[in-house]
Amino acid sequence: MFEQLGLIGCGLMGGSFALALKRAGLVRRVVGYSKSPLTLARARALGVIDVEAPSALLAVSGADLVLVAVPVAACADTFKAIRHLLAPQALLLDVGSTKADVVAAARQHLGAHLPQFVPAHPIAGKESAGIEHADAELYRGCQVILTPLPETDPEQTVRAQRLWGALGAQVRQMEPQAHDAAYAAVSHLPHLLAFAALNALLAQPKGPQWLGLAGPGFRDFSRIAASDPTIWGDILLANRTEVLAQLQHFRDALAALEGAMQQRDTAALQALIGHASRGRSQHAQQWPAGGQGGAGAAANAHAAPAATAPALGGASNPAGTPEPRLCLE
Amino acid sequence: MFEQLGLIGCGLMGGSFALALKRAGLVRRVVGYSKSPLTLARARALGVIDVEAPSALLAVSGADLVLVAVPVAACADTFKAIRHLLAPQALLLDVGSTKADVVAAARQHLGAHLPQFVPAHPIAGKESAGIEHADAELYRGCQVILTPLPETDPEQTVRAQRLWGALGAQVRQMEPQAHDAAYAAVSHLPHLLAFAALNALLAQPKGPQWLGLAGPGFRDFSRIAASDPTIWGDILLANRTEVLAQLQHFRDALAALEGAMQQRDTAALQALIGHASRGRSQHAQQWPAGGQGGAGAAANAHAAPAATAPALGGASNPAGTPEPRLCLE
Repeated sequence: MFEQLGLIGCGLMGGSFALALKRAGLVRRVVGYSKSPLTLARARALGVIDVEAPSALLAVSGADLVLVAVPVAACADTFKAIRHLLAPQALLLDVGSTKADVVAAARQHLGAHLPQFVPAHPIAGKESAGIEHADAELYRGCQVILTPLPETDPEQTVRAQRLWGALGAQVRQMEPQAHDAAYAAVSHLPHLLAFAALNALLAQPKGPQWLGLAGPGFRDFSRIAASDPTIWGDILLANRTEVLAQLQHFRDALAALEGAMQQRDTAALQALIGHASRGRSQHAQQWPAGGQGGAGAAANAHAAPAATAPALGGASNPAGTPEPRLCLE
Repeated sequence: MFEQLGLIGCGLMGGSFALALKRAGLVRRVVGYSKSPLTLARARALGVIDVEAPSALLAVSGADLVLVAVPVAACADTFKAIRHLLAPQALLLDVGSTKADVVAAARQHLGAHLPQFVPAHPIAGKESAGIEHADAELYRGCQVILTPLPETDPEQTVRAQRLWGALGAQVRQMEPQAHDAAYAAVSHLPHLLAFAALNALLAQPKGPQWLGLAGPGFRDFSRIAASDPTIWGDILLANRTEVLAQLQHFRDALAALEGAMQQRDTAALQALIGHASRGRSQHAQQWPAGGQGGAGAAANAHAAPAATAPALGGASNPAGTPEPRLCLE
């Protein structure tokens, strides 16, 4: 049980964390700060926070738990702003999608408070961001990756593990660099590709008309393209080196497919598609049911059927199956 | 009301068509053929077809409605096989994802029966293909694109429109070439990109491990990568020129994003992401609710929120909202 959560950033991620803590009876009072006065007032009106703080520093004052839930590029300034009133035993968390840059900012700005910081990346989100979509159940069934440092107080890491676990998350630990390499591959590059696919369509005279013809396959494929430009510009730049390295791997794989098409090599093309299809199906089975796979993953076990089946090879959830709780990125 | 459906290809698409016709009371008897005896026996056991035919030709004998539901590359052989017993007034349909090649095959092989053929592409499918997943509701709410030829009997086109409409589909007409250009952009290229993204991951030593860390954003993005290799190899080769042209547009858009990352140009990167994000959100709103957008499209209207929101920019359906009936490609 925490006495007071200091919440810096009152958006979907921070607001959902506050609501989840309250629902779990794990916090007595939430003091919030947002750089947008309108957002702050809304957070108060919605009962996500109990007290509006006029600054990040004052939101932290008296808190035994602090969550920094701002775009990753804003973490450095936030750490700088709060360090003077951060209580020595308070647990400090973030929710950033990149970890090496946030860790570097923490090392630079937190000083003696560094051992209190347990960096965290919840693999959660919603298409509908903003405080009005905050959801006490957002983190249930999601993975949360903790990337504690050598300097991190092991007791704080244990507290962070228990806390995220109490909100229903599956907690894992990784090195910050290993985290960034993995998420460049399974999150950041896919976002970049989806942005490019949308822009390629929009750049063509008939693109908007074609978009009206799109089916659910495209809807699912392009969903991440609707992400927030500020947050995702930050992420792609913060993890630039890893994302560009992944882009090169992607280009190689694409060139192999294109080569088979250029040469009209049916067998080679089918082999390349088969490799992707089997890989997707096999790995989808291992995704946890809550949020990260669920109906989709289960259905996937049956994908890539016998060649006699004339299905068009689409992809979505089975009819009538409710989408698992979304917690995605 | 049709007396007899001759069904060539007993997979998800063909089987669902037969079940939908039966449920709507639009057919008295279904005679089916599959090149796989096992599939044919299953279709009979499941009540999808009433009579097993030993050949495509015999499945067509006596039919006043014929559906060719085989991979697009198999259409030419199928047309050749059935033309001698196709009744002069029978309505002939297909479900192929490409149209110019199917139309060319029809011109080459149907002879005097060409006016009976109304080419169709239902934007429908399932991750779980095969006859055992056939679903009488598969086509409800989906778009079906008809591409009649100058030679097509207008009465047959009207019959096809009414028939697909009676199964709950939204019917549109396009030229075959215009269809193929549009679906190269909104379906075939996205499949190619998803295949490449999976293969890029699988080619790296840590790729399989990283796949275990993927969240719902990747799950949705990669869903179409689980498609059937035979069907999709056919489609990509049949529509090769258009897909390769779309690939060049994609490369240009990707290069712009990469350039902004290389130059660490935050403003340019955010502008490019914002363009994609707004385009996705705006167009998702126009997708019909049944199958082709639904919850996702509605939720999307709120995507790309104010920059103050610290959400991680994920993407999926809202919590608890049932996925609309899948009919996707």
